[in-house]
Amino acid sequence: MSLLLARDLAADIRAGRTTPRAVMEQVADAIGACEGEVRAFSALGLDAALAQSLDPALATRPLAGLAVGVKDILDTRDLVTAYGSEIYAGWRPHNDSPVVAMTRRAGGIVAGKTVTTEFAFLQPSETRNPRRLSHSPGGSSAGSAAAVAAGMLPLALGTQTGGSVIRPAAFCGVTGYKPTYRLLPTLGMKTYSWHLDTIGLFGARVRDVAFMIAAITGRDLDIGDTLAERPRIGIVRTGRADQAGADAHAALEAAASAAEATGARVFDLRLPDELEAADAAHGNLQDFEAALSFADELAYHRDRLSPLLREHLTAAEAITPDVYDEARRTAKRARQRLGDLFGEVDALLTFSAPGPAPEGFATTGSAIFNRLWTLMGCPAINVAGLTAANGMPVGVQVVGRFGRDRQALEVASRVESAIVG
Amino acid sequence: MSLLLARDLAADIRAGRTTPRAVMEQVADAIGACEGEVRAFSALGLDAALAQSLDPALATRPLAGLAVGVKDILDTRDLVTAYGSEIYAGWRPHNDSPVVAMTRRAGGIVAGKTVTTEFAFLQPSETRNPRRLSHSPGGSSAGSAAAVAAGMLPLALGTQTGGSVIRPAAFCGVTGYKPTYRLLPTLGMKTYSWHLDTIGLFGARVRDVAFMIAAITGRDLDIGDTLAERPRIGIVRTGRADQAGADAHAALEAAASAAEATGARVFDLRLPDELEAADAAHGNLQDFEAALSFADELAYHRDRLSPLLREHLTAAEAITPDVYDEARRTAKRARQRLGDLFGEVDALLTFSAPGPAPEGFATTGSAIFNRLWTLMGCPAINVAGLTAANGMPVGVQVVGRFGRDRQALEVASRVESAIVG
Repeated sequence: MSLLLARDLAADIRAGRTTPRAVMEQVADAIGACEGEVRAFSALGLDAALAQSLDPALATRPLAGLAVGVKDILDTRDLVTAYGSEIYAGWRPHNDSPVVAMTRRAGGIVAGKTVTTEFAFLQPSETRNPRRLSHSPGGSSAGSAAAVAAGMLPLALGTQTGGSVIRPAAFCGVTGYKPTYRLLPTLGMKTYSWHLDTIGLFGARVRDVAFMIAAITGRDLDIGDTLAERPRIGIVRTGRADQAGADAHAALEAAASAAEATGARVFDLRLPDELEAADAAHGNLQDFEAALSFADELAYHRDRLSPLLREHLTAAEAITPDVYDEARRTAKRARQRLGDLFGEVDALLTFSAPGPAPEGFATTGSAIFNRLWTLMGCPAINVAGLTAANGMPVGVQVVGRFGRDRQALEVASRVESAIVG
Repeated sequence: MSLLLARDLAADIRAGRTTPRAVMEQVADAIGACEGEVRAFSALGLDAALAQSLDPALATRPLAGLAVGVKDILDTRDLVTAYGSEIYAGWRPHNDSPVVAMTRRAGGIVAGKTVTTEFAFLQPSETRNPRRLSHSPGGSSAGSAAAVAAGMLPLALGTQTGGSVIRPAAFCGVTGYKPTYRLLPTLGMKTYSWHLDTIGLFGARVRDVAFMIAAITGRDLDIGDTLAERPRIGIVRTGRADQAGADAHAALEAAASAAEATGARVFDLRLPDELEAADAAHGNLQDFEAALSFADELAYHRDRLSPLLREHLTAAEAITPDVYDEARRTAKRARQRLGDLFGEVDALLTFSAPGPAPEGFATTGSAIFNRLWTLMGCPAINVAGLTAANGMPVGVQVVGRFGRDRQALEVASRVESAIVG
């Protein structure tokens, strides 16, 4: 299964070398061949997508009629939106969420809804890792990562509150990009934590997610083949480094060496105490908000939540406003300190996950190396291309300065090209 | 029409001097008597409310079974939610918005949905000002302000993106309270601008909205009869002072003198340039986000928007990301400067509106003295009790420090008691 390269496909369409319809047929064929085993989709709209792909105006639009998968935590007006929960089985929202409307406006075609774990939390989904079907694709954006990894889609939307974009991207061996907080609006997303929820993008290469964010926002983020020039890259292992396995450490060393070999200025960086402290504050901030975000479900559908989520939210209801306020102050101090830190460094390079995808489906893996960067709101990109001893993908994570997404993407593309050429 | 005093009614219920049912019957009678002329409700649920009020457990709950009105910009699971737009006529959301769920959990009973202007923007609604039916109640939380002013409800929820809580409260002569940004979650609110939208509360007196915010959040904000001790109050007329009429200036002078006479330390304060600049940034920030928030309506229902809103959003679509980003930077600089300013002052006292309610219904009035404080995210309270030359209410606005809502409420209550005893 070869990955679909969104930016190249759009260029081919614009140059007349192929058509939106031909690409959509390729997508439909790949889905026909792989979906039975991978189970990346909660709903498919291929007939409508194939029909839409005949619109001759598409070739001139930013996304050129490319197929996009939409995580089923995001509202869509034409496809059932169930947020991975039986509570919403068959639910039809009134509207497209703004990020979906922006995607359509840019000439993207929604081919289907991709599987999310229940309300984007930790209960494993039915989706399989296309790199090895016996392994987890990660979560919560399981379907989006798996569909891109299986070559069923060139692009997909996901979301991250802890590590739900970077982790599945790392496990499935694709690019996952969590933009700066609120660069993409989270309206029409089933909220878990309003200070953390962030819309993310999946594609084959770094340049593909850069192409997509530029297309849907109109911002100057389509980096193409641009690579950061001699970037200052701080290697960050964090106070939780001992929880990263040998594969993760080896990948981080390999990525750092490769980047240095291509001209990057690479050095070890110890995280300031304010940031280590903020990592521990993520949970209280997230869960206090979750207990309010799910107030209706807790009042009327508590027994229809998975035991895992029900127990988690029940505990969350006991978090006091004082604990929450202190977590927010801790996060604010850390953001200020991180801003200072980015005066000395262009990007951070750290683990995407503790290791490769877990075998089996008991867990979607850990967000331990992601939650801090979600809390900080800064851009993060999983760079794919390295592999573990068992042959499964291992990602490394490039973290950029808040609001400096173009620089983060250019550094990530530099690291990617150093790894995979 | 006498106002219903929420905090006193709850105390009477707890003391056994009255019952939730008796209060709900009083509410039903007042609605029967006034609603025909005032038109404050878009949907009523009095039969269900009367039935719920029989629950014997209510007397021990924070809100003691009091009736609450919910602005129809907030989702409710049991009452139609149309956001003031024909596009959503008859729409039934899946859930209660969290703030409604929090209100019910605290023992509040939703008696009805209150009228909002179309999507909480500027198109006047059918609601009348109960203080004089020939006058506007203001907007966009027209129904919530009018229902409390008419004595039909003790408490109501509203929202403010520009001046949609403070302005109608001032025009109708009730207390309007815009808490610190995100003290109440905006999930399940039809979003206009996610950096500005703020849930607000309406009640008779300052102590009544303080009682409600404490009840639904569990925070220590129920000030009761506590008044700020010798607060330092800066009188702020802003660079737009010439757009405030004689009634507004007279009210501000009267409130300042009365506060000083009761021991407040009152002095004139000129707003730093960073804050004057931020006032002008509100529009670009709000409207760039609105064009995305309404992406679905603009794509599928543009012709079903009022001409006023359609033209506004069509212009908003032309705002570039650069202009938006600059507006956000301007707002950030102003918030930092305002934080410094609150080292020297406990609260600001300024205009709530340029004057009393406009006669007729061509306009809901101006948010010119509100939008800056919405952008800053700090708590703001309309203090009622003063009147214009024509006998209509004129409010003054107390603005507090971000996150210091208790202090802002205690200062507002000090000013209120100085005015009305």
